[in-house]
Formats: sequence, C-alpha cells, structure tokens
Amino acid sequence: MFPSRLLEKWWLRAFIALVIFFVWQLFYAINRVQSLEEERATLQATIEVLTRKSDGLRTQIFEKERNLVRLNGKVEEIDTQIRDHLSLLPRVNRSTPFIYFITPTHFRAAQRADLTRLSYTLSHVPNLHWIVVEDSDELTPSIAGILKRSKIPNTHLNARTPSDQKMRYDDPNWTLPRGVEQRNRALLWIQNQLSGVKEGVVYFGDDDNTYDLKIFGEMRKVKNAGVWPVGIVGGMFVETPILEKNGSISHFNAVWKPERPFPIDMAAFAVNISLVLSNANALFSFDVPRGYQESTFLENLGIHRYNMEPLAEMCTKVYVWHTRTEKPKLSKESIDRLTKKTGFNSLEAHALGVDN
Amino acid sequence: MFPSRLLEKWWLRAFIALVIFFVWQLFYAINRVQSLEEERATLQATIEVLTRKSDGLRTQIFEKERNLVRLNGKVEEIDTQIRDHLSLLPRVNRSTPFIYFITPTHFRAAQRADLTRLSYTLSHVPNLHWIVVEDSDELTPSIAGILKRSKIPNTHLNARTPSDQKMRYDDPNWTLPRGVEQRNRALLWIQNQLSGVKEGVVYFGDDDNTYDLKIFGEMRKVKNAGVWPVGIVGGMFVETPILEKNGSISHFNAVWKPERPFPIDMAAFAVNISLVLSNANALFSFDVPRGYQESTFLENLGIHRYNMEPLAEMCTKVYVWHTRTEKPKLSKESIDRLTKKTGFNSLEAHALGVDN
Repeated sequence: MFPSRLLEKWWLRAFIALVIFFVWQLFYAINRVQSLEEERATLQATIEVLTRKSDGLRTQIFEKERNLVRLNGKVEEIDTQIRDHLSLLPRVNRSTPFIYFITPTHFRAAQRADLTRLSYTLSHVPNLHWIVVEDSDELTPSIAGILKRSKIPNTHLNARTPSDQKMRYDDPNWTLPRGVEQRNRALLWIQNQLSGVKEGVVYFGDDDNTYDLKIFGEMRKVKNAGVWPVGIVGGMFVETPILEKNGSISHFNAVWKPERPFPIDMAAFAVNISLVLSNANALFSFDVPRGYQESTFLENLGIHRYNMEPLAEMCTKVYVWHTRTEKPKLSKESIDRLTKKTGFNSLEAHALGVDN
Repeated sequence: MFPSRLLEKWWLRAFIALVIFFVWQLFYAINRVQSLEEERATLQATIEVLTRKSDGLRTQIFEKERNLVRLNGKVEEIDTQIRDHLSLLPRVNRSTPFIYFITPTHFRAAQRADLTRLSYTLSHVPNLHWIVVEDSDELTPSIAGILKRSKIPNTHLNARTPSDQKMRYDDPNWTLPRGVEQRNRALLWIQNQLSGVKEGVVYFGDDDNTYDLKIFGEMRKVKNAGVWPVGIVGGMFVETPILEKNGSISHFNAVWKPERPFPIDMAAFAVNISLVLSNANALFSFDVPRGYQESTFLENLGIHRYNMEPLAEMCTKVYVWHTRTEKPKLSKESIDRLTKKTGFNSLEAHALGVDN
C-alpha cells in the first residue's frame, strides 16, 4: 500500500526518524514513570515503617514515662516515710560485716520496757544481728513480738540460770555474776551456726544500757578486740583505759579491783568473731572471782592489753553508758507475784510482758 | 516546501495524527515524571523528618532510660539503707496532725544517756515535734547536738527552777514537784508560736520513761483528752482508769491519794492542742498539793472524767512505762562535783554532756 518511492524523499526519511525519536522518548518516559512509581512505593513503604517505628518508640517512651512516674512515686513515698528521721547512721554496704549483739535478759518489772526501748535504738543500726538470750525455761512470746516488730535480724534463745545462782529481789546487782549461762548460750550458737563467717564483731550489750549510735561505728573498726570508755559505771562517771602517748594502753582508771587483767565492764569491749570461732573454750563461768568475768573471757581469747585497740577517738569519747533501770518500790505482795511470775491480771501481764 | 497535495492523502493524515498522539503522550509522560520527581522529593523530605524525629525519640528514650537507671539506683540505695529496720510505724500523710512532745529535763549523771536513747525512740515517729525544756540558765550544747542528730523537728528551750524548789541529790524524787517551770515554758511557747494551729496533740513525756511506738498512734486519736494505762508507777505494776461496761471512766486504780480528781501520772494522758490554746491559764504551779499537778492542769482545761477518752484498746494495753534510770552510787566527792556541775575532766564532761 505504502508507495515505496516516497521513502526516497529526504523529508519523509527525516519525518520517520523524528517519529522514531518521539516513540523512543515516549518509551523512555514511560519507563521512567514506572521506575519512579516503584520508587514512590518504596518510599511510602519506608515512611510507613518509620511511622510504625515512631509509634513503637512513642509506646516505649510512654512506658518509660509510666515507670518514671511509678518510681518517682515510690521515691516520694519512701521519702515521706523516712523524712526527718532516717539516716541517723551513715549508710553501709550489704557486704559490711555484721555486729552480733548479744543481750542476756531476765524477767523483772521493766524487762518488757527495757527491751522495747533497746529495740528502738538497735533498729537504727544496719547490719546488726541481735541475739537475745532469755534466762527462762522457754521463749517468752512478748519478747518474740518485740524482736519481730523491731525488724532487726535476730535470734531468740533461752538458757536458765541454775537456781542456786539466782539472785533474790532485794540482792544488790553485784551479788552473783549475771548472764553467764545466757552469754555462753549465745557464744555456742555463734560457734555452731556461724562457723563459716569470716568477718564480724561480737558485743555483749545489756538490755538496760544506753548506746549512742556512734558506738556501732566503733565496733565495726574492731580487728582483734576493741575497747572504749563506759559512762556511769563502777561508782564513777567514766571507766576508761588510760593510754600512753603512743596510743597503747597503759592501765585502766577503775578503782574497784584495779589489779584485774581487764578491770572493765562488759559494755567496754567488742571482739572479732574469728576469735570467738577459733577459741571454743572462751566461755563465761560461775567459778571465777567476782569481777573477773570480762578478764577471764578476754584472756581465753588470747587478748592482752598490748593487742587491744583503743577506740572512740582514742578513748576520748563516751558512746555507751551503763545505765540501770531502777527497781520499782513494790509492796511485799507484788514482789512475791513478780518473783513467782504469777497472779497478774491481764493488764499487768501486758505491762510486764508475760501475756501471749 | 511541503507539497500541500500530500495532505490530502488519508494515510498521511493518519500518520500526522499518530505523531501528535505520541507527542501528547510524551508531554504527558514528561509531566508525570516531573510530578513524580517532586513527589519523591517530598517523600524523601518526609523520611528525613521522620528519621530526625526518630532520632529525637531515641534521645528521649535514652534520657528516660538514664533517669530510670538513676531512680532505680536511688531506690536500691534507700532500700539498702532502710532494709530490715524501717517502717516500725505505719505511714502518715504530711498533713497528719503533729504530736507536740514536751520533755522537761534536768542535769544529772544520766541526762545525756537518757535523752540520747529517748531521741532514738522519738526519731521513729513521723509528725512529732519535740519540745525539750532544760532546767538550766542556758541551752546545753550537747543537748542541742542530740536534737540535731535526731533529725526530729524540735524546739530547744530552757527555764530555771527557782533554787528554793530544787531537790538535793539524795532527796527522793517525789519531795518537790518536778518540771513545773519547764512544762509551763513549753505551754507558753505553744500558745505564742502555734496560736494558728488547728490540729495536734500535746503530751508531757519525761526523758527516762519508756514509750512503745504504739502510744503515738493512740495520741493521734485524741479529740479532747485521751487517757491510758501506765506501767510501773506509783508502786504498782500498772496504774489505769477503770471503765464501766459502757466504756466511760468509773474510777482509777491508784492506791495513793485516790481521792484526787485525776489520780494518774503525767505519762497517762494527752490533750488536744486546741484546749491548750484556748485555756492560757492552764499551767502548772508549785502551789498545789503534792500529786495534784495533773489534776489541776486537766481541770483547768475543762476536762472531766466523763469527757476523757479511754484509749489503748479501752485501757487494756500498756504502751508507756514510768521507768526511772537509777542514780549511780557515787562518792561524796563525785556527788559534790555533779551538784556544782563543775570539776569534770574532758572525758567525764563528754559522758555527762557538759562539754561543747
């Protein structure tokens, strides 16, 4: 149909070339549109992914925000709870060695009161294990209650003093040695239960003494056996070691039996637990002369004046007082009931800690 | 140049139409490419924005994460600090009314010791304001130190007992009324400084008594005047109101001067601060018969047995004991120094709280 002679015309050839060029351009453009549309799809997918990620991040932020609010609430709550009255003592690590605070205790009018207020002092002390040993045939529920409420890690034991070693109500407190069976019970418990313990310090703390919280910081310094002044004891304002200029112990200022190896009160020293664990024979005894309990115990641990560590700022401060709670002036009938530990009405039983 | 007759040929017209179609298509395609390229630029910009936002969100997450780690660390730190021995008392709100705990105190061998251990009890009590009033000519620095270390909100005052009303070292403790000037000083301070206070309770707490923390919960219940049993007081195991079956106070079990309007100890009651603020004349006095301080004060506040609130589980529990710290057996020379408050060496001064 197409007249072949026409192809020989120059303008027709040029025209056809132009058409081919346009067609080529057109294909190129269509191709480009296709690739751009693909690219657009990719980009839109990327945006979708990014938006999803963004949502994910926002969710994360929301959750973290919630955690922050929760934690802030908790911090504030704790803060309210402890404000004004926490950190009476500096912080310790969980790994700080424990103080094993041994308290022998016997039934009397103020036993519940004295243990109650002692628990409020000790509950300020971190890493302290309170070993309470009752002079009784069985554990007293009210004392278990004091220990529980104190939230102090504790061990509640009992050991009865033989009746021939018991004092009567009107005996002066020095008539017979006190707390012998109870301290030994605690020492044996330590030897049995804590044989693997490498660090720690053992202290004998009576239930009516008064402890400045600073004394517990001093106890933690004890490497061997530490010693410090004690207030209001032995008829003096302070009993204390007297130090040489070089810081070693020269003698003690005690006026009663100053010839004793260690003329000091039970409250005046603490020993490293390793000494207690390696000297199973170091116990208290009814068979030592009056006033020699401390000396005998310390000597059995291998302590000498020269290897004792003077603490409490080189024995210039008093952080423990040998306070004693006064025995109430009671009628003969009341003394009788107290001695027999019976015949109380329920309110009296609560006051004295003999209820359940 | 172009042979016009050619235009009349049908195939040429068709051919030209085809060319125009292709050109149109080409322009359309180029147009589409341009718009797609613009769209691509927009999308890329969007992606850039989203990426930047994402980075921003990641930064936020990082910061929140850091905050969380910090807060977690703080919670853990606090936890370490308080573990085992916090929350001996239930929490209170910051708005819980205060207990104004008035402690009259006088110099003696165990003053520093007694105030020290009392501070460790009170420091467990939230929303308690401790008003310590010394029987002295000036404030004692060591007592200020005890107050400061206790972190208890406090007011430290002094008021000297007239010398003709002072007891000698060997006088029994009941010879003369105690703490008259000091309690009045505290009451006047409350009237002057807390006149705008609407809620709160006032309690007189001696420095050698023993307080179960539960007593502070009882105090917070006081609407008018609360009363409860006290252990080891008046030669008895417990002094207490005796209640009728309907819960009102019938009488008291005191054996000494039971005819007194309120035969109870200072430790046995607490009163609402509004009563103290509205009865400026309710003060203590040296001019009342022995044992009538409590009765006179309560009567001046307009309290009668019938409007007193029996607390401590209807007076079936003992949460406070009138313990007394024993006076040490001292030499005549030591008693002389104690009475004159002079002649102590620096260690004795520290034990007795007369150092600086």
